[in-house]
Amino acid sequence: MQAAFYHGNRSITVGECTPVPPGPGQVQMRVSHCGICGTDVHIYHGNMDHRVKFPQIIGHESSGVIEQVGEGVTGWKAGDRVTVRPLDYCGECPACKNGHSHICMKLKFIGIDSPGAMQGLWTFPAHTLHRLPENLSLEQGALIEPIAVACHDVRMGEVRSGEYAVVLGGGPIGLLVGLVAKSKGARVLVVEPNPYRIQLARKMGLNVVSPGETDLVEMVNNETGGAGADVVFEVSGAGVAVETMTKLPRVRGRMVMVAIHPQPRPVDLFRFFWRELKLVGARVYEPEDFEEAIALAASGTMPLDPVITKVVPLEGLLPGFQEIDAGGDVMKILVRCS
Amino acid sequence: MQAAFYHGNRSITVGECTPVPPGPGQVQMRVSHCGICGTDVHIYHGNMDHRVKFPQIIGHESSGVIEQVGEGVTGWKAGDRVTVRPLDYCGECPACKNGHSHICMKLKFIGIDSPGAMQGLWTFPAHTLHRLPENLSLEQGALIEPIAVACHDVRMGEVRSGEYAVVLGGGPIGLLVGLVAKSKGARVLVVEPNPYRIQLARKMGLNVVSPGETDLVEMVNNETGGAGADVVFEVSGAGVAVETMTKLPRVRGRMVMVAIHPQPRPVDLFRFFWRELKLVGARVYEPEDFEEAIALAASGTMPLDPVITKVVPLEGLLPGFQEIDAGGDVMKILVRCS
Repeated sequence: MQAAFYHGNRSITVGECTPVPPGPGQVQMRVSHCGICGTDVHIYHGNMDHRVKFPQIIGHESSGVIEQVGEGVTGWKAGDRVTVRPLDYCGECPACKNGHSHICMKLKFIGIDSPGAMQGLWTFPAHTLHRLPENLSLEQGALIEPIAVACHDVRMGEVRSGEYAVVLGGGPIGLLVGLVAKSKGARVLVVEPNPYRIQLARKMGLNVVSPGETDLVEMVNNETGGAGADVVFEVSGAGVAVETMTKLPRVRGRMVMVAIHPQPRPVDLFRFFWRELKLVGARVYEPEDFEEAIALAASGTMPLDPVITKVVPLEGLLPGFQEIDAGGDVMKILVRCS
Repeated sequence: MQAAFYHGNRSITVGECTPVPPGPGQVQMRVSHCGICGTDVHIYHGNMDHRVKFPQIIGHESSGVIEQVGEGVTGWKAGDRVTVRPLDYCGECPACKNGHSHICMKLKFIGIDSPGAMQGLWTFPAHTLHRLPENLSLEQGALIEPIAVACHDVRMGEVRSGEYAVVLGGGPIGLLVGLVAKSKGARVLVVEPNPYRIQLARKMGLNVVSPGETDLVEMVNNETGGAGADVVFEVSGAGVAVETMTKLPRVRGRMVMVAIHPQPRPVDLFRFFWRELKLVGARVYEPEDFEEAIALAASGTMPLDPVITKVVPLEGLLPGFQEIDAGGDVMKILVRCS
């Protein structure tokens, strides 16, 4: 079978790869599709070279069909249509013991710390599997992982029906956060400067404004009777968004830190005190977020198709990275892996 | 009767003052004691001149005995021993309507925005009163307001029995936060560089370390089986404490922003994401915090006497400010007002 290999230094090749038979507790999946994630772009840029082993097979937003199951695996059989929650935890650290295995202190993220989905036949631990219902296509199945991220973010933000939610950043995760918050009955405003993303967000039925063209504080106050937003999601990673973030919430409003800010950012801590604001970090997902993402996607109520910009073969991975780097009109690229 | 007046520019005088008869909904209290608060120091420094009216009677950590009640005031009578929750809210803004009147968007803080307690006979709204039990002295009664701040902070930090709490800053509020957290069954570590405050914290039965002499991260991890602190209170206002703050909590640990940081501070937002940390601001108190503070103080289990450095007459207010400014060995100074 074929696989895409990352060799460091923005080098990607596609070549033959020997399938690994599933060991005890493992399954082998015929990978149908795998989405290109922002994390994959970071890997491609070399930012995670300390974690990968060359040549590394990356990819973690996957869907497929079980090919064979290893010893001791119950509840799964060849032919099952599945998606994968790519977290391999130790089960023994304080975080795992405290019930937070998705933030295991020795977490192995499958597709970074071990081989990922960009291959025809992929072998990995069976405990990561979630079943895809028949009415979800395998293309849509490859979106479950990012939708689960959004479900987790919205859950951490405690979004309730009728609330006003602001999403700073309209990339794939930002738009999905907007859609999931909307599914909870929230009024949602997405803030995004990129014209391509703006029109895509509108196509998906989301309210969206460009930060340069709008006085956000005034707008949010106007739309909330002077109170402020109930919840703000920071999904952009931009310093200016961190500045905006603390200005928008109402008294006792919430903020969710979804984006990765590698450097410390100036934060208006006085505003936390003054309005009793709350900021919570949100990382990956828990099993219930995957189940919610699958149920939401299967409900047919989410406009998911506009998220998928195109579907490419394994050979399209490198051009995909290059297109993303060039700032092209790209939301989500799916790679067809078998 | 006598009162202490602030005239701006670090000028304080004591002189005759005509008592104001209580209007409808008001009471007149014979003020027994009033503590000097950090906020009063800010007023004395001129930092709040835009809010005060010269000459201003300040003070808000008070105890006393009701002298007379105004029209329509029920439940209170002359002779009642009381303390005062000095918050005057509008009842009509979004925050008030949402049940958060202690953060009223037009909040008047009595003793800043209207005359305070540093006078013999003080007239103010009756809805601010809390009853003092007989077994609390009026000196101790003047500590209820800062204890209520600590009760609010600990409540916002959701401290539970058996948890590990770190308090950054060992001033009056920091020590009280430590004592209240301890009363919840938490293991408490106070972090404070000042030798006078360190010995006082020890006298009160609190564990305390100097940040310069201790590797805090190592210490907290050692004491929590490698997990990290359950909750961290930032009560110091120091930039270096904000840096420390995000390093200490466990996965899903909490931080409470008690201190006032007038300028934005660099904050490690990556750590929020990585450990799903939570930061919540805490401002003043709600009625239940006053009731809890009174019950705690009356229980006799809190070593409150070491908090009171000395009791001075009204004429001692100016020397008190000067002593605090000079960095003297001072925790809480109480002013005897009548």
